[in-house]
Amino acid sequence: MATPSAQYSVTLRVELPHGGVLSKVTAAIARAGGAIVAVDTVEASGDSTVREITIECTSAYHRGEVISAVQAVRQARVLEITDRTFEIHRGGKLHTGLNHPIKTRDDLSMAYTPGVARVCMAIAENRQKAFKYTIKGNTVAVVSDGTAVLGLGDIGPEAAMPVMEGKAMLFKEFADVDAFPICLATKDVDEIVETVKRISPTFGGINLEDISSPRCFEIEQRLVEELDIPVFHDDQHGTAIVTLAALINACRLTGRKLQDLSVCMVGAGAAGVAVAKILMQAGITEIVACDRFGAIHREREDYLAGEMNAPKRWLAENTNHACRSGAPSDVIEGTDLFIGLSGPGIISARDLQKMNPEPFVFAMANPEPEVRPEEAAPYVRVMATGRSDYPNQINNVLAFPGVFRGALDVRAERITDEMKLAAAHGIAQVVGDEELDEDYIVPSVFNRDVVHAVAEAVAREARRSGTARATTPPEARRPAVV
Amino acid sequence: MATPSAQYSVTLRVELPHGGVLSKVTAAIARAGGAIVAVDTVEASGDSTVREITIECTSAYHRGEVISAVQAVRQARVLEITDRTFEIHRGGKLHTGLNHPIKTRDDLSMAYTPGVARVCMAIAENRQKAFKYTIKGNTVAVVSDGTAVLGLGDIGPEAAMPVMEGKAMLFKEFADVDAFPICLATKDVDEIVETVKRISPTFGGINLEDISSPRCFEIEQRLVEELDIPVFHDDQHGTAIVTLAALINACRLTGRKLQDLSVCMVGAGAAGVAVAKILMQAGITEIVACDRFGAIHREREDYLAGEMNAPKRWLAENTNHACRSGAPSDVIEGTDLFIGLSGPGIISARDLQKMNPEPFVFAMANPEPEVRPEEAAPYVRVMATGRSDYPNQINNVLAFPGVFRGALDVRAERITDEMKLAAAHGIAQVVGDEELDEDYIVPSVFNRDVVHAVAEAVAREARRSGTARATTPPEARRPAVV
Repeated sequence: MATPSAQYSVTLRVELPHGGVLSKVTAAIARAGGAIVAVDTVEASGDSTVREITIECTSAYHRGEVISAVQAVRQARVLEITDRTFEIHRGGKLHTGLNHPIKTRDDLSMAYTPGVARVCMAIAENRQKAFKYTIKGNTVAVVSDGTAVLGLGDIGPEAAMPVMEGKAMLFKEFADVDAFPICLATKDVDEIVETVKRISPTFGGINLEDISSPRCFEIEQRLVEELDIPVFHDDQHGTAIVTLAALINACRLTGRKLQDLSVCMVGAGAAGVAVAKILMQAGITEIVACDRFGAIHREREDYLAGEMNAPKRWLAENTNHACRSGAPSDVIEGTDLFIGLSGPGIISARDLQKMNPEPFVFAMANPEPEVRPEEAAPYVRVMATGRSDYPNQINNVLAFPGVFRGALDVRAERITDEMKLAAAHGIAQVVGDEELDEDYIVPSVFNRDVVHAVAEAVAREARRSGTARATTPPEARRPAVV
Repeated sequence: MATPSAQYSVTLRVELPHGGVLSKVTAAIARAGGAIVAVDTVEASGDSTVREITIECTSAYHRGEVISAVQAVRQARVLEITDRTFEIHRGGKLHTGLNHPIKTRDDLSMAYTPGVARVCMAIAENRQKAFKYTIKGNTVAVVSDGTAVLGLGDIGPEAAMPVMEGKAMLFKEFADVDAFPICLATKDVDEIVETVKRISPTFGGINLEDISSPRCFEIEQRLVEELDIPVFHDDQHGTAIVTLAALINACRLTGRKLQDLSVCMVGAGAAGVAVAKILMQAGITEIVACDRFGAIHREREDYLAGEMNAPKRWLAENTNHACRSGAPSDVIEGTDLFIGLSGPGIISARDLQKMNPEPFVFAMANPEPEVRPEEAAPYVRVMATGRSDYPNQINNVLAFPGVFRGALDVRAERITDEMKLAAAHGIAQVVGDEELDEDYIVPSVFNRDVVHAVAEAVAREARRSGTARATTPPEARRPAVV
């Protein structure tokens, strides 16, 4: 059964006559399965008290039931119903802040005309100074066309905004990167590439988000080639980096070597291809990737007929050299690591028994993993999911804030494969030897050490490879993360 | 002689041995013409004191002289030289702020996944909800291609950023509008129109800025037609609104009627055309507009040859019906109002004597007006300029924050001509009858009543005409302006 959670919480403003009515209301809520998290007194008079009761529910439907239960208590009068999730979104989740006030003519004459003209001319003479004297040096565009938003699919650019705003919040909260959502009213690859290039003078980096596969691959590749600021498709590389980090620690825990692992992966979308690539860069050679037709290889009919899209073609040509074929439940046999980036029920606990001894299972489908941890437990050494209510959550939030923090700090021109590997090692190392455990191979998303570890690893690698343009620490204000 | 100002200020960190060296330094600064605004003690030891001396100068060159004068004082040691204007720009002038913190898993589950999905779906079902649940309802893009930045010309998108950031600061400071700079790496009209349309899902309004004439006219017109959010080219309409506001009050002061005025205008760029249009909408019929070849009319050779650009053609066809020809100094004869949107020295004090009695002169060229107020004074009843160091500054800051505040508050689909007229009246009415004076026809840019007066006037007119989509007060957080 689902547990009540904040995302389905509701706040009821209720007028309660004196004489035990509150206890009737709380009893009604409890019977309906709601979890009361707060009761605040708003107003008290001689006859009655107005209280705000905040209740967590398990779903939107359940919330309706809980509200009805309270309304059914005869003496209680429900004055207002507030959906906390919608309440948080009212008016949007971001605002623009000023780094200096404009209260006097002197302020105006320096931040705006006429003083600003000298700064403009300095940048006109040397465009690189935009990194120092404008928001460019610390600002990332979170760009989406709204075609692959969460698990919701193609819901359009306006409906994608709450996710992109949320992403921008995470950039700020975890890495003091100023991120701004840009949702595009086009799904055309050429138009998306053009548009991002044209708005790029404002930004120090581009985070692509929730753009459907396989379009996302071409969009990212062209932007990386044509822009001189970092471009990073988080759905691909964020997932890949955190998956590798988890795997590094699973190996550390069990004394195995990455390159010895044989991998079965289900899901050949944006994240799947990126995960396969980073695992290969990390030294793994045996990977079998499956889509909904089964294992992908270069003798499969759709490959031979030229009907595979580019990323799957890449998987066919670069993984599964033995051309193993069959369903996931077949090709999982004899592997050490299962990676799920697909949907619920793709494999069963029974299938896990075909794996090599003490396997790793990363079942990352959200909200329902490919196999439930409770069922997998007897057959698995290390289990990870995409969920926050099980141990070892593979969450992109561990990667992208630090990756961009590091890249911006050294004004990197791009985010190389080596920088992604460095980021994975950065995340992994946050878990100390004495902490490392089957239930703790990935740090918590609220562990503030992660962003520093990742940013430093990324910046160091950028300096090593010459991708960094600034060799000294950033002259812009330092990240406030502490 | 120019007066020292904050925009050319410098802060010197100086080590001064004890024994009267500070007074030698201050004397040297005074001799060099610098104005000391602050002396702060940073550090004192037995032998010496480190002080920070902030000095205002008259120009960049003068600042160099003042620094040399201090360096020439034998016992003083200059440790650091800080240019305050550049200092304010370091790291950019804006940041992204969160409307709610993300400190706990509950915060994350409501502002981001999984809770955010319900908000996304609500918007997917009804796109208008984006105004309520995303930043769209309060966010304006400040868009420029960097082709006509201040008086600097075509300096490119990166170099335009400090101005657009400054503009965004003013939006926030004066009207609590969240504005974000978007500087475009293209000068092509079609590409600019396309790009703005594609990024428009994020924004509730578009403020076009510093785009060169005549391209700005087509860009604005097409965007107004093709988007359902307000599009406003501030260089045109901001100037036009404030000019009309000043004129309304000049008439109020002198008991004249707008429609009786005969006007000579110099400058047929973006602002000139918009000023001519708003004056005509306000009832003025006699306008002669001049460009650098003299008065514009429909018998001029370049008009007949089809060589005039679209906006000048519009002026030829809609103003100067008598086809008066000649230089500004000719056609100024017999007019009641001179409007200068050109450059210094276009007319002389002598020319003003040809005007009708007690004329109005709005000489708005910046930084040097068409005629200096000191010279014009004997011949003029009311004088206005674009400068902050004379009375009656015609400054766009009086218009655009309130115009967008009003338009956003009622979710206006566009900013109509009537809304612009309403804005002008809104600015004018802030000056009370008892305050109205030759030296006070325009409120100060720091007068916080202006934004409210303008926003209310604009919102009222939008509701009257049906351009408003929201008829109730905005559900988003109210502007913090008080």
